[in-house]
Amino acid sequence: MKIAVDAMGGDYAPGVVIEGLALTVQEYPDYDFVLVGHSDKVRFYLEKYGLADNPHISVVHAESVCEMSDLSAVALRSKKDSSITVCVKLLKEGKVDAMVTPGHTGATVAATKVLLRTLPGVDRPALAANMPSQTGRFLLMDAGANPDCTVLNLEQFAIMGEIYAQYLFKKDNPSIGLLSVGGEDVKGCELTKEAFKCMERLPINFVGNVEADTIFEGRADVLISDGFAGNVLLKGAEGLAKSTFVWLKRVLSKNALRIIWAMLAQNVFRELKAFGDADSVGGAPLLGINGICIIGHGSSNPKAVLNAIRVAAECVHFKLNEKIVSGIAAANEANRKRTAEETGK
Amino acid sequence: MKIAVDAMGGDYAPGVVIEGLALTVQEYPDYDFVLVGHSDKVRFYLEKYGLADNPHISVVHAESVCEMSDLSAVALRSKKDSSITVCVKLLKEGKVDAMVTPGHTGATVAATKVLLRTLPGVDRPALAANMPSQTGRFLLMDAGANPDCTVLNLEQFAIMGEIYAQYLFKKDNPSIGLLSVGGEDVKGCELTKEAFKCMERLPINFVGNVEADTIFEGRADVLISDGFAGNVLLKGAEGLAKSTFVWLKRVLSKNALRIIWAMLAQNVFRELKAFGDADSVGGAPLLGINGICIIGHGSSNPKAVLNAIRVAAECVHFKLNEKIVSGIAAANEANRKRTAEETGK
Repeated sequence: MKIAVDAMGGDYAPGVVIEGLALTVQEYPDYDFVLVGHSDKVRFYLEKYGLADNPHISVVHAESVCEMSDLSAVALRSKKDSSITVCVKLLKEGKVDAMVTPGHTGATVAATKVLLRTLPGVDRPALAANMPSQTGRFLLMDAGANPDCTVLNLEQFAIMGEIYAQYLFKKDNPSIGLLSVGGEDVKGCELTKEAFKCMERLPINFVGNVEADTIFEGRADVLISDGFAGNVLLKGAEGLAKSTFVWLKRVLSKNALRIIWAMLAQNVFRELKAFGDADSVGGAPLLGINGICIIGHGSSNPKAVLNAIRVAAECVHFKLNEKIVSGIAAANEANRKRTAEETGK
Repeated sequence: MKIAVDAMGGDYAPGVVIEGLALTVQEYPDYDFVLVGHSDKVRFYLEKYGLADNPHISVVHAESVCEMSDLSAVALRSKKDSSITVCVKLLKEGKVDAMVTPGHTGATVAATKVLLRTLPGVDRPALAANMPSQTGRFLLMDAGANPDCTVLNLEQFAIMGEIYAQYLFKKDNPSIGLLSVGGEDVKGCELTKEAFKCMERLPINFVGNVEADTIFEGRADVLISDGFAGNVLLKGAEGLAKSTFVWLKRVLSKNALRIIWAMLAQNVFRELKAFGDADSVGGAPLLGINGICIIGHGSSNPKAVLNAIRVAAECVHFKLNEKIVSGIAAANEANRKRTAEETGK
């Protein structure tokens, strides 16, 4: 197992990434890692975390970094030697089994789409975000890779989502819902109304339309959406969660008694925050790309880096992409047959 | 001032609506009200709340009720004598100045669109939801009236939203943002990318793309969206807020100390909940419809009913619809001129 890690990705790179790698080598001493980034900076932190002489870690220099403020397409064109692009190239050349970046989602999507392409039969990749619900967690996909989607895209997201959820939630038959604006079959926008009919015909555990409020009650294991509405749901939830803690702080600093009370309750708030904790999740895979690519949160901490690497390795072991290829092929074949039959009539 | 109130709307009708009306007549003793609903039930609650002999309250019988589980279009066709439809007819016939319903949003949108039509020059109405942010509140529109929108629709929502925000937030020049999946101008889906260019040319305080996380920090006074993504943001926020309290309850019932601690903190939680409180807001107007129509939350309490009626009366006083007609006319004229110039070139 050899994994490329983008050392320059995220808000606290490269320190936090290498600190995360230090945790990882303890847990997975047999894995090999290729750290991609500015070699001087990377070596400084390898020294710092006692990894300088680790035989399982090699460094590949990348001259530039995709900053969070960079536009994806511009970053791809003008920063051909960015740490993200170098990771993607290593993956393309078969020099690593998977890549992990806590970096720029848009730039990673752009680089993988252009350099790696999608898996055979897959039209568009989808970012599968792992989100909390009252009963556990659910996968939201697409969480933002494709702002505009077709019915075929949503159908393929459902197939890929089912396979990833089988690994992630250890369920044979995970439930798949379609994000919509009403629970009834006929509700939604033109895209979801058409997608509903197609998803009903798929050999999946389709539970129909799911509204954005009931998904947090655990209505489905996988929630299918175009990347625009999916990103709105993801970012909206992140924003509201942050604001809730701001509001909580505001009511808790109203008087001295409350301030003392809040100090006593630090553990409670920590546990509450843990429900939304992205660090234990590690990262979101970009499903449908011809290579295992896990994208972490920009604010990943060392634990998040470890978990993102763990997810990457597990996806390789699970043979995720082989399963996606055969799942998509079967669906495409069924679609082809149905179209032929319908045309025959 | 004469306002039609749908007595049968919402989860706790008609009791809660008439209890709300009892609060309202104390605050606005000069207003007249037409209570629409099953007259026996309505009169029972008028007795109960001491309103049976109030000369400002009349009752109009409506045989049926749009249940929350009814489909909008079906409800409109098959329940022609529903309390919502009767309210809309009173408004159409000029017998009342405004209507308020804590009922079925979809059925109200359908009934007003068909019976009242939109204001001159307005293509589609938009539901303007009032939501909390760290710095105050913002208007989200469309919150769900139109799952599929055109660029023209979004442009008109911006104009209507500016006018409503001038009344609601008492700001001359409220900021208008466009809900998108990236802060930069070029980010978004095809619809928002095109809408961005059009909104830049409008005579409004356009602050560009706003992501679903930063809107809760107070990035804009008005957030423009199609009704699909808007509804996802609204419902997602409602669902996450509910789940957050479920999670909070879970961590607070872990041991005896925490249970006592939580009991002492009831006020804190009440104040925290108040940030998301829809009751003080009352209801969301359906902007662009040829008549003042305020739609309350299905779970409205008496205070929410009072506030919805207050909003309705204030919209009438503010001459909201006259302002919308002239705002839209000016924008349409500017668009026509620009198109003529561009074609002339």
